Amino acid sequence: MILRKLIRPLVRKLHAYVPGEQPKVRNLVKLNTNENPWPPAPGVQKAMRAAVDDRLRLYPNPTAQPLREELARLHQVKSKNIIIGNGSDELLALATRAFVEPFDSKCDDLQGSRRARCTIQWFHPSYSLYPVLSDIHGALANPVPLNPDFSIPECKELRRRGWLANAALSYVTTPNAPSGRGYSKAELDQLCRDTKGVVILDEAYIDFAEESAESLVRNHPHVIISRTFSKSYSLCFQRIGYFIAAPELIDALDRIRDSYNVNGLGQVGALATLKSLGHYRKNFKRIKAIRRRTAQELESLGFEVLPSATNFLFVRPPGPSAKTWQRKLRDQKIIVRWFTASEVCDYLRITIGTDKEMEACLQAVRKILK
Amino acid sequence: MILRKLIRPLVRKLHAYVPGEQPKVRNLVKLNTNENPWPPAPGVQKAMRAAVDDRLRLYPNPTAQPLREELARLHQVKSKNIIIGNGSDELLALATRAFVEPFDSKCDDLQGSRRARCTIQWFHPSYSLYPVLSDIHGALANPVPLNPDFSIPECKELRRRGWLANAALSYVTTPNAPSGRGYSKAELDQLCRDTKGVVILDEAYIDFAEESAESLVRNHPHVIISRTFSKSYSLCFQRIGYFIAAPELIDALDRIRDSYNVNGLGQVGALATLKSLGHYRKNFKRIKAIRRRTAQELESLGFEVLPSATNFLFVRPPGPSAKTWQRKLRDQKIIVRWFTASEVCDYLRITIGTDKEMEACLQAVRKILK
Repeated sequence: MILRKLIRPLVRKLHAYVPGEQPKVRNLVKLNTNENPWPPAPGVQKAMRAAVDDRLRLYPNPTAQPLREELARLHQVKSKNIIIGNGSDELLALATRAFVEPFDSKCDDLQGSRRARCTIQWFHPSYSLYPVLSDIHGALANPVPLNPDFSIPECKELRRRGWLANAALSYVTTPNAPSGRGYSKAELDQLCRDTKGVVILDEAYIDFAEESAESLVRNHPHVIISRTFSKSYSLCFQRIGYFIAAPELIDALDRIRDSYNVNGLGQVGALATLKSLGHYRKNFKRIKAIRRRTAQELESLGFEVLPSATNFLFVRPPGPSAKTWQRKLRDQKIIVRWFTASEVCDYLRITIGTDKEMEACLQAVRKILK
Repeated sequence: MILRKLIRPLVRKLHAYVPGEQPKVRNLVKLNTNENPWPPAPGVQKAMRAAVDDRLRLYPNPTAQPLREELARLHQVKSKNIIIGNGSDELLALATRAFVEPFDSKCDDLQGSRRARCTIQWFHPSYSLYPVLSDIHGALANPVPLNPDFSIPECKELRRRGWLANAALSYVTTPNAPSGRGYSKAELDQLCRDTKGVVILDEAYIDFAEESAESLVRNHPHVIISRTFSKSYSLCFQRIGYFIAAPELIDALDRIRDSYNVNGLGQVGALATLKSLGHYRKNFKRIKAIRRRTAQELESLGFEVLPSATNFLFVRPPGPSAKTWQRKLRDQKIIVRWFTASEVCDYLRITIGTDKEMEACLQAVRKILK
């Protein structure tokens, strides 16, 4: 039996998403996947430990209702405006299946409104998962280049570069990754006016930025705000993300998700997190302060450091190529991220760690520069 | 803006899967969703509690590699034969997207091999999630009735009832739910010979049965064994399921899954579970013994009790309708499951709980019969 024939041609052609390395070796300074350097608040750990009991045998709340209600309170919306995902990655994938028609070259033509209904667009560079999700769904991919300084082009220029007003789905990473650049609510407001399909403002890093575009969901019913507990709330391990949007869009996503998609201890941890927000606000301040100091140090060492509204720095190192820098840092047990795409291959992305970790990173840099 | 237009017509038409009730009230005897009445082994709880630490801030292992390796050892296969899911539900859904073409009435005709490539089939009655997954994917659904005693029809009769030899995907719940009927490896072997597309043998309840069909994956590379830690290993809360299959099929599923689909504490719990298998084997024996005693009691009270190879009993109550029985039991704080489909609406599905819970259930039954 030829097994290949049992697999959809679409799937045979896919390249899997390559997540950042999760090294098994200890004693590494891990600055490559934008994790928070501090563990969740003590109250969160306590609540999770206490929940490891008889309830493990039971199914978790299928709609994560208590968590939706608490998040609704936080964002001053209703629980029907919220959906919880197995990380925001799951929700970003669900959005392709809820809002975008797969493109079939045999029966679709490449023109007009049908084309738009099959199109997913995003800015390049941004989150490298988007093209993977588009390919998995069999959508038409429309990556549109940002300006060289990673700002969003203005409307006319956007159109010239091929941004479709009526693409079925648009992903916007804000603040941008990997550049770290933040966008003002005003410019995102304009982008949402200029785009008629579903727009996801992916605010994975928003807690390290100046301004959230959260309130845009009130004026623009086609806009979704995406958030995650991974980065700012140190809960990567338990996979909790959420969307805020109009009930109609939430309902569509709800119909196609797995029925028990959010694990129980993740729900417990996220609920406890919302009771410790003061703890996390201090955490964000510390990360921003370390970011500022690290940026200054790197600049004084000859790095070009882009302004960052995130928990990482996007930097162009002096001297050898960024790829070589990555390897040389790795030799000194400092792991940073390097991307192959041509617009960004001259840069390194360095997650903000603790003061001690950043000092180790800077020492390694100084050693390489010697 | 008319939001409805932003949602795919396919999704607008969907009915969401209705999971069994997860009641908020305490003091209920919950016999409706086939959870194990006992918590995970002490070693599992201990390992999970100990893992609530600094690692929460880190992404979990993206491929759940240590767990795949342990499961490979258990099943005497390689880790490339295993994929872990966010519950087996996630994997059952992924299978639709890896192996089945969505059907487009505008460009597909309803005949021939193209039709088969768009078809998902299953036996009716079986797991009520299958039609939901088929609809979500936009596949052609082909439910094929089991015999009245819930056995699988023989080959000729199967064909007569519309079972396709070359359907892209076939789901087979074995032992069957909701009837509880077990199937021998020999009859499943024959079914796999008679079916050429991907066949998933969904062994969610296998630990309570006489015989697994696990070894069939060796002879039939188009066959997938589906397992879950939810029922037998009391880990519903943390969503761990897995598939065993040929590497080519595993690889296809791997390409389309979310990159961090399995939460970290779930991975920790599942790994610890595999170190306590002796504990769980005793658990299965106890459940089978309670199942036997409960079946005898219910029969003596006038119930028709179907043979069960699972952790539940499928019973036809005497006197009033099954629906009325469900309500009357609920009034006495006993929750059992009742399904509306015509083939099964005369039955109740009762999960096997502890001796105490089953005694409470039987007492409620006796009270209703008075």
